[in-house]
Amino acid sequence: MSMPPPLQGITVVDFSHVMAGPFCTHTLKTLGARVIKIERAGEGDVMRHYDTREEYKGTAPPFIAVNCGKESIALDLKSEAGLRIAKQLLEKADVVVENFRPGVLDRLGLGYHENKATNPGVIYCSVSGFGKSGPMRDNPAYDHVVQAVSGVMSLTGEPGSKPTKVGFPVLDTFAGYTAASAIVAAILQRERFGEGQYIDVAMLDASLNLMIAMVAPYLIAGDIPKKVGNRGFNMSPTSDTFQAADSEISIGANTQVQYEALCKALDREDLIHDPRFAEREGRIKNEIALRDEIESRTREKPAEEWEIIFNKVSVPSAAVRTINDIANHPHVEQRPLKVSIDLPHNPLAKTLGPGFQLANVPPESLGAAPQLGEHTRALLIELGYTNDALDTLAEQGAIQIGQSRI
Amino acid sequence: MSMPPPLQGITVVDFSHVMAGPFCTHTLKTLGARVIKIERAGEGDVMRHYDTREEYKGTAPPFIAVNCGKESIALDLKSEAGLRIAKQLLEKADVVVENFRPGVLDRLGLGYHENKATNPGVIYCSVSGFGKSGPMRDNPAYDHVVQAVSGVMSLTGEPGSKPTKVGFPVLDTFAGYTAASAIVAAILQRERFGEGQYIDVAMLDASLNLMIAMVAPYLIAGDIPKKVGNRGFNMSPTSDTFQAADSEISIGANTQVQYEALCKALDREDLIHDPRFAEREGRIKNEIALRDEIESRTREKPAEEWEIIFNKVSVPSAAVRTINDIANHPHVEQRPLKVSIDLPHNPLAKTLGPGFQLANVPPESLGAAPQLGEHTRALLIELGYTNDALDTLAEQGAIQIGQSRI
Repeated sequence: MSMPPPLQGITVVDFSHVMAGPFCTHTLKTLGARVIKIERAGEGDVMRHYDTREEYKGTAPPFIAVNCGKESIALDLKSEAGLRIAKQLLEKADVVVENFRPGVLDRLGLGYHENKATNPGVIYCSVSGFGKSGPMRDNPAYDHVVQAVSGVMSLTGEPGSKPTKVGFPVLDTFAGYTAASAIVAAILQRERFGEGQYIDVAMLDASLNLMIAMVAPYLIAGDIPKKVGNRGFNMSPTSDTFQAADSEISIGANTQVQYEALCKALDREDLIHDPRFAEREGRIKNEIALRDEIESRTREKPAEEWEIIFNKVSVPSAAVRTINDIANHPHVEQRPLKVSIDLPHNPLAKTLGPGFQLANVPPESLGAAPQLGEHTRALLIELGYTNDALDTLAEQGAIQIGQSRI
Repeated sequence: MSMPPPLQGITVVDFSHVMAGPFCTHTLKTLGARVIKIERAGEGDVMRHYDTREEYKGTAPPFIAVNCGKESIALDLKSEAGLRIAKQLLEKADVVVENFRPGVLDRLGLGYHENKATNPGVIYCSVSGFGKSGPMRDNPAYDHVVQAVSGVMSLTGEPGSKPTKVGFPVLDTFAGYTAASAIVAAILQRERFGEGQYIDVAMLDASLNLMIAMVAPYLIAGDIPKKVGNRGFNMSPTSDTFQAADSEISIGANTQVQYEALCKALDREDLIHDPRFAEREGRIKNEIALRDEIESRTREKPAEEWEIIFNKVSVPSAAVRTINDIANHPHVEQRPLKVSIDLPHNPLAKTLGPGFQLANVPPESLGAAPQLGEHTRALLIELGYTNDALDTLAEQGAIQIGQSRI
């Protein structure tokens, strides 16, 4: 399969910063798009500064994670020349992504309607906390705040415990992924039916969609979801996390067949016929006693040994791992998930592709994370500016011309 | 914008059951595809039986949530005639989705390579726990088990606490969404460059991508992520959850400007210049004292009042809400997120669209969740079978002909 990637030849002009927007355009980049990242002259994307180590100055690891292979142009949008350049870039865009507060780009004359007038096929996507409609539309947002308002926190943790945040920026990331998916769908729609359009992606909307298994049953039948702690959603007492000799082992024995296989694998066939546990109802009623029986065995071996034993008899199971346990695990190494990047102080550095592999997706390498304004000169020469004109604009502060570090 | 939806005219043949696969094809349905759901004669998708209420018998709310508007055909794939029908449907498919254990469909002659021989443009997507390569490829999976192995559990909760599961099936859902996104990208790739392909989506891969903010900095710089409890990822002591008069209020005051605005909104301007708290370092050092000062004020009013007060001064903030607080909130009501469905016992019932709105996406209504085999007869007549032939096949048990409930 030698097809070009799906977004070959598609130019994305990206005004976004911090997480959801840059992750969106990272995903588009891994699918083959060209991404032109417009940054504020002087500081650039604040994510550049999320690290104090000298070697990561200006390109912190979280910035590198989602910005490799993008071209950075640094502009002062408050200057007339900077604004004009932004408009010139927008005129050539297939896709625009932005995550400013509502109205900011409209006031600068860089909004969808202005852009559409000169670029009628444009697909223009705004990513924000709460979207462009509704009473919360002007509220600023961080991931943890949207986790609070959306109900994500209310569902996580043991029954009776305080609301608990998901320990990674799940909504920033999922909103960015939603935006990338919407843009790809809109490109397909334009390819087949001819028109561009405006797309309004909100972290709160995305979070409710991610919780569809809880939200839709409420909308359908009024069912109010309950916290289940670490138990599987089937609520079987044998689908939970148990103490092993070293760490913990997660087991998923939902069905009678799985329960019996689990008992055999534990070398505790007596539990199959024990009147307290023989049927699902009994296991639920006597769950504390059952947990004690299971843990008296699971404590005897390390979690990774149990993982192999249980999976061999078709009982879903996994040791509870940390990011550093799993990120370079032999299994993950064989998955088409990672993509090489250029990073002088770590030649083995990688980031992640779009989460799936298509023909020629992701590419073999994404290249380097751009220094602030690294591509200002090349991009403006492409737009027809002379080197002399650029030097003047740089002196005036309308643009910032950065250097490549490599 | 009167374009047809992006997947207009695209036929998806869906062998999947339970959650990730059906959510994938639900998303494709909301984008305009026709989805033919092949179910096992007799029981059908086990998600149909996730409820004991009489009115939801055979179509439980979690099933309705992700299956409305699909056409159900019920087959016995162990019978020659049932298998032949499945092959005939596959020959006409633009897209195939399945989430059987590796090898199951290959053994039945329904795998990608067989399908491709008669249907060269097919896009064939497998969704599984661990994917089709790597040493864990044969391991069965549930959402909570993949939360364990992926590091999701290790990140969630207060520092020092036990691993904590995210309280909704985040990985089932995100893997399904990833599969839908991959399929849309592959359709675009086929539309532009002519070829179909096989796509291997894994819950574990998807989970690592969802945690890219933690996983990539580890791959880039060896940074091991730490649990942060309910604190914002910026780690400011004023970005956290605080006790209000009724419930809790989440605040995001990361910057000095936000901190000062927060103090003023609390009517505690003294905290701005208090030497313990004047600078970020001091606030981190004296975080317990600062929390006490803030909560002495936040306890005085309900969380939703504080939410308005803080947002008015551009401090991101939200009351911690539950699913039933937010799902019908006036803000969410104004968002283009929900889609109507047909459900006789609740005419107001809705489910969720793809998480964004494009021209004619989602449709005004998705229709009803199909009864098991409700479309068997119509689909087979479309394939050229006679009513007599169908009655014979039904008697033999090769197919099951269901009725519409409505």
